[in-house]
Amino acid sequence: MRILMVGFGNVGQKIVELLSKPDRIKILSDLTPVFTGIFTASHGAVVAEKGLSPLTCLEYFRGNNGFTPTLPYYYPGDIIDAIDTLSYDVLVEVSTLSITDRGEPALSYTEQALKHGKHVVLANKGPVAFGYKRLMTLARTQAVKLLYESTVMDGTPVFSLARNGLTGCSVTGVTGILNSTTNYVLDGLRGGKSHDEVIQEAQIIGVAEADPRYDLDGWDCAAKLTILANTLMGSDLTPMNISREEFRTVTPEMIRRAKSSGEYIRQVGSAWREKGRLKAQVAFRRFPAEDPFAFVRGTSSALRIETDCMCPQMIFQENPGLKDTAYGVINDLMTIVRSGFE
Amino acid sequence: MRILMVGFGNVGQKIVELLSKPDRIKILSDLTPVFTGIFTASHGAVVAEKGLSPLTCLEYFRGNNGFTPTLPYYYPGDIIDAIDTLSYDVLVEVSTLSITDRGEPALSYTEQALKHGKHVVLANKGPVAFGYKRLMTLARTQAVKLLYESTVMDGTPVFSLARNGLTGCSVTGVTGILNSTTNYVLDGLRGGKSHDEVIQEAQIIGVAEADPRYDLDGWDCAAKLTILANTLMGSDLTPMNISREEFRTVTPEMIRRAKSSGEYIRQVGSAWREKGRLKAQVAFRRFPAEDPFAFVRGTSSALRIETDCMCPQMIFQENPGLKDTAYGVINDLMTIVRSGFE
Repeated sequence: MRILMVGFGNVGQKIVELLSKPDRIKILSDLTPVFTGIFTASHGAVVAEKGLSPLTCLEYFRGNNGFTPTLPYYYPGDIIDAIDTLSYDVLVEVSTLSITDRGEPALSYTEQALKHGKHVVLANKGPVAFGYKRLMTLARTQAVKLLYESTVMDGTPVFSLARNGLTGCSVTGVTGILNSTTNYVLDGLRGGKSHDEVIQEAQIIGVAEADPRYDLDGWDCAAKLTILANTLMGSDLTPMNISREEFRTVTPEMIRRAKSSGEYIRQVGSAWREKGRLKAQVAFRRFPAEDPFAFVRGTSSALRIETDCMCPQMIFQENPGLKDTAYGVINDLMTIVRSGFE
Repeated sequence: MRILMVGFGNVGQKIVELLSKPDRIKILSDLTPVFTGIFTASHGAVVAEKGLSPLTCLEYFRGNNGFTPTLPYYYPGDIIDAIDTLSYDVLVEVSTLSITDRGEPALSYTEQALKHGKHVVLANKGPVAFGYKRLMTLARTQAVKLLYESTVMDGTPVFSLARNGLTGCSVTGVTGILNSTTNYVLDGLRGGKSHDEVIQEAQIIGVAEADPRYDLDGWDCAAKLTILANTLMGSDLTPMNISREEFRTVTPEMIRRAKSSGEYIRQVGSAWREKGRLKAQVAFRRFPAEDPFAFVRGTSSALRIETDCMCPQMIFQENPGLKDTAYGVINDLMTIVRSGFE
């Protein structure tokens, strides 16, 4: 399987590492990954039709903080040209979501690859959050796979479960704690830390970005909720359509009151149907200590799925790391192999 | 799809009901279920090569507490003969597990159907708990499906998830609260009820059997744990190999102590590897109130799966009912359809 990868941050690097050391994961023998190109937005790109040596690329990239023109396989061209002209079977898009650019440029990359009859695997939420219906229609027309397991709850097989384990069910509602940064900060505040203190701490251990507003103000949760609602409940939302409470609505007084009554405040994304219309929101809610959502701690996430076939089902993941996200992408690649990839 | 069903208790009846009223569930259009035979151990059987009218059968069965020789489609023969000679595509075995008979007669029924190249779907735990390896080898040789989603946590897609969502992962451990009767009784005792009182209550609402020892003494949990260990961890256990604490080990004093320290006692099935060997046990364990296992209440169940690819994953189902078990069987039938059943 020839892979063209866009994005070579933590997730991309971890994927290369896991795929190159197959003792770490039992890769399906038919997968035989060959990287024909690795692209970044601002740290250069490398291309080799016959396959790059991924571990050498990784080492170079880390040592030089990017790919530089001195490299023999350095590629100076545009990503979109590469997607149009290079040899590959699957586009793996693992760069970060841009809300302000409404999922671009990853959305265009995905669309272009699908048009060329290539499979696409995404860890980047942008394309499915901003163009799900259009992209899925295109994938069906082209008879290729568009998979995105890692976009919600990392490798936890949410979408795999929905595709295979809920056949015939209508999903009537989803509720989830989907952003670990916010959860981490809320628990820090509850523990008596100041806002600045807990954010700084979260940044140091790598849970929060330099600008944490994207997480705290619910954009990440809204993007994930959009993907869940669009793929499981047949809606056609974008994160812009989702009502979203910003972090400043959580006052120190609210934190104190919740603590004194033994409750926990959580940022919750939920989607449900009301009089036939789909509603979706990201809001801060209080849960009693004995509610499953109350003890989603650390970087853990949880998702509750309601259907018309069964009682509510809930999935927890306990403190995922980079390996979980990378595994989600690899599991998608293996799904492509098992679907009869040649 | 021609179905021969063995067992027509609550689960069997619910399956017939759901499959006959497809507005209740979005049955795949290729499924078109045709019941060619419905068998019970001691309440008669009906057979019609061209298909029974399932709702008429259901009504008759309920009205007469069984199938009687006055019925035009009454079948007086043996089940095993029927499995050998009748026309059907899938054997659906939904009678109850017999531990004392080591999964028989369902084990023989399953084996016989597989030998004839028929698919088998089980809600009965017996065959997979007592003959998994042998049956699975036979199914592979015959290129047919042996599916058993409903044996553990009803319709919750545990095995579907493992087949599709954990590709390449090694399951390193499972831990579950798998028997709702025991959980219900433990919470009743904690609430101050007497042993007899809570068991009677559980029997009245249909949670406990007339003889509750099978559940309370861990046989049901051991059977489920066996299936999990055999199918997810590659072991070859039977429920007889599993170390099992009986209910009498839980003293009133233990219940009091747990309550006063804010803890919850739970019957837990767990399997793990120790120095390369698989260990499995059913035991009573105490959990602090803030542990996810502490608030598995009512008839709910929970399962934690550890793998080498990801952080621990946990699945909860909230108060399942008969519909959940029936759905598990129907989802298995739809899996057969999607695998290219003709």
